[in-house]
Amino acid sequence: MRVLITGVDGYLGWSLALHLSARGHEVAGIDNYSRRAWVGEMGSQSAIPIASMADRLIAFHERFGKNLRFFKGDLTDPGFVLNAYRSFRPEAIVYLGEMPSAPYSMVDVQHAVFTQTNNLVGTLVTLHAMRDVVPECHLVKLGTMGEYGTPNLDIPEGFFEIEYRGRTDRLMFPRKAGSWYHESKVHDSHNVEMACRIWGLCSTDIMQGVVYGTRIEAMGEDPRLVTRYDFDQCFGTAINRFCAQAVIGLPLTPFGKGHQRRGFLPLRDSMQCLTIAIEHPPQRAEYRVFNQFEEVYDITQLAERVQKVGNQMGLGVTIRAIENPRAEAEEHYYNPDHRHLLDLGYQPTHDMEAELEIMLRDLVPHRERIESRKEAQFPDIRWDGSRRRSEYLPPSEPAERS
Amino acid sequence: MRVLITGVDGYLGWSLALHLSARGHEVAGIDNYSRRAWVGEMGSQSAIPIASMADRLIAFHERFGKNLRFFKGDLTDPGFVLNAYRSFRPEAIVYLGEMPSAPYSMVDVQHAVFTQTNNLVGTLVTLHAMRDVVPECHLVKLGTMGEYGTPNLDIPEGFFEIEYRGRTDRLMFPRKAGSWYHESKVHDSHNVEMACRIWGLCSTDIMQGVVYGTRIEAMGEDPRLVTRYDFDQCFGTAINRFCAQAVIGLPLTPFGKGHQRRGFLPLRDSMQCLTIAIEHPPQRAEYRVFNQFEEVYDITQLAERVQKVGNQMGLGVTIRAIENPRAEAEEHYYNPDHRHLLDLGYQPTHDMEAELEIMLRDLVPHRERIESRKEAQFPDIRWDGSRRRSEYLPPSEPAERS
Repeated sequence: MRVLITGVDGYLGWSLALHLSARGHEVAGIDNYSRRAWVGEMGSQSAIPIASMADRLIAFHERFGKNLRFFKGDLTDPGFVLNAYRSFRPEAIVYLGEMPSAPYSMVDVQHAVFTQTNNLVGTLVTLHAMRDVVPECHLVKLGTMGEYGTPNLDIPEGFFEIEYRGRTDRLMFPRKAGSWYHESKVHDSHNVEMACRIWGLCSTDIMQGVVYGTRIEAMGEDPRLVTRYDFDQCFGTAINRFCAQAVIGLPLTPFGKGHQRRGFLPLRDSMQCLTIAIEHPPQRAEYRVFNQFEEVYDITQLAERVQKVGNQMGLGVTIRAIENPRAEAEEHYYNPDHRHLLDLGYQPTHDMEAELEIMLRDLVPHRERIESRKEAQFPDIRWDGSRRRSEYLPPSEPAERS
Repeated sequence: MRVLITGVDGYLGWSLALHLSARGHEVAGIDNYSRRAWVGEMGSQSAIPIASMADRLIAFHERFGKNLRFFKGDLTDPGFVLNAYRSFRPEAIVYLGEMPSAPYSMVDVQHAVFTQTNNLVGTLVTLHAMRDVVPECHLVKLGTMGEYGTPNLDIPEGFFEIEYRGRTDRLMFPRKAGSWYHESKVHDSHNVEMACRIWGLCSTDIMQGVVYGTRIEAMGEDPRLVTRYDFDQCFGTAINRFCAQAVIGLPLTPFGKGHQRRGFLPLRDSMQCLTIAIEHPPQRAEYRVFNQFEEVYDITQLAERVQKVGNQMGLGVTIRAIENPRAEAEEHYYNPDHRHLLDLGYQPTHDMEAELEIMLRDLVPHRERIESRKEAQFPDIRWDGSRRRSEYLPPSEPAERS
């Protein structure tokens, strides 16, 4: 299948290009290296060194004996996108080309505006170009589990049947996001749903949990084929920051009470799930939603897992909570569905500790790269608009688990 | 109260400035004359001639003995907006400064992108400036009843209590809009709700029905104080187009079966409702939603009303359906709530025919202005992205009312 990956230079995009190519798909990619620039703006860098796109493309060809077709450009430019579609005629587009950071979107009005316009305009341009060039193409759009927020209800996969005052309908499940970034994904979901409804396009909108891990099989042992690993306050997830902290001897820092519950999945599972979505496209005019994660953990449980694995490796890991720079519920109900991908054959890995051990082993050789940018991991972007570094919280009795 | 009206040069904005000033409020306004430019782009003009802002401001001062403070500039410019807030320190902001046309947003990718970025960025800039300058100010944000679409359920006012799998929560009622413009309002609603939740701002988000009418008392008889009247395919509502058609002897043109049901209200009622919202602000951190309309009609009923009133005036009005350029349900359930404003004292006019007669009488002297731009009222912007003028449909048995 001809698969176009937007954001192919990013963490998931690059990994997916390798994974799909190893499965025999024909892959093209679009990027303008924004992720490298944003991480630089945060004063950080990928902990694991990554090759330039030029070198990546050479290594790709050496490994697979075929080219990755690469289009350098901006996804918000309609002419550029039209030309790329006309040239490659994708059968599936995996849209990984958005600004993915909640804290980055909360810095100030300029970052909020950039986040929402970059993400929404890219999606609008995609939908129009699909309509005009490849109307039967399947859009695999990356959303986030964060679109739903933390309602006091089970979270279905995108839609629910409701009865209200004696009548029934099937409607989108209400979203309640917690940052301008997360809201941009909510807006995207509404826009994509409308394009499927009125233009007959088809899309799988993936509400993905937090992805962690450094490796998939398709990378082999070629260092030019590895994917990036961010640990700064904006582009590093909690789990990435914990692992980076563990290898340089800093305490792991859950935010606040540390009982925020989220869905997580390893990188290899994310690749497996995206591949299932691509290889099982929806009907024309269908808009479907998959909740894509393996298991739900709270942030303290995650820190304890990293601590356990790190200590087995002799890293001497401690945990110390810091002030939560975000406005979010620290105790909440959380029970999202995730049946659709399992029904299509997703086989979860179920071995977080093995994955964490690989991550830590991959990071240890790059201690100095992390050490040299360690300031970037301390959060100072606050949800109230101020910019003040979070302090360590005083040690306390472990809070009651809700 | 100090009230800042964005879009003060527009149909509702100008009327509201007069109405609030007559009630003794201190009014400021922002505009960059976009509406005049957009209507020009559609090859049209206001049927009723309107004065320049310079002349409007002189007439305003003559009528009320005080100035309307006017800031000319772009609402998407954060520095400009901050300075206006710092200078005027509004206690309420009525946000009427968005691109308001569904067809305009469906022209092509550039118009879709413009619509969503103009509307979203203006709102994001507003929310940040409120947070930083006037955090206790009340944002009266204009949404549209079109955010909800036409679900097979009663439509509550913004939120509903739901029970789902044995648990309950109060969540935003799911939105299902039918154009990029309507989606921009859905996105705004999500953004405003989030700002109230995490920053403690307060807002009334008004899901307004279709407003019609040419006059309010505060205009008096000064022609420099009248408000605009659009009848082109983008900026003229169905009811405005029907009245314009009636005065130049064209058939009134419902789209398709003409059974689309919508909520409507006269201009004087819109002014009354907005004033109620302004004078009864919500609590800090409260985000509330009002459905603002007087009565629900279907489009054919509207056409018949205009025909009846026009014929009483000797205009000899006919009705002839045309192809529907939109993708929308032409037969559907529609039963939205609208209690909140009535509970706060809204007294509906309940006399559409008297209002239509005033509109037609106000338009008759401007027949030639309408005649000279009559091509602009025929729809050729289609929801499928093509541009082809809608044909008259063959006369048929009146379709069964659902």
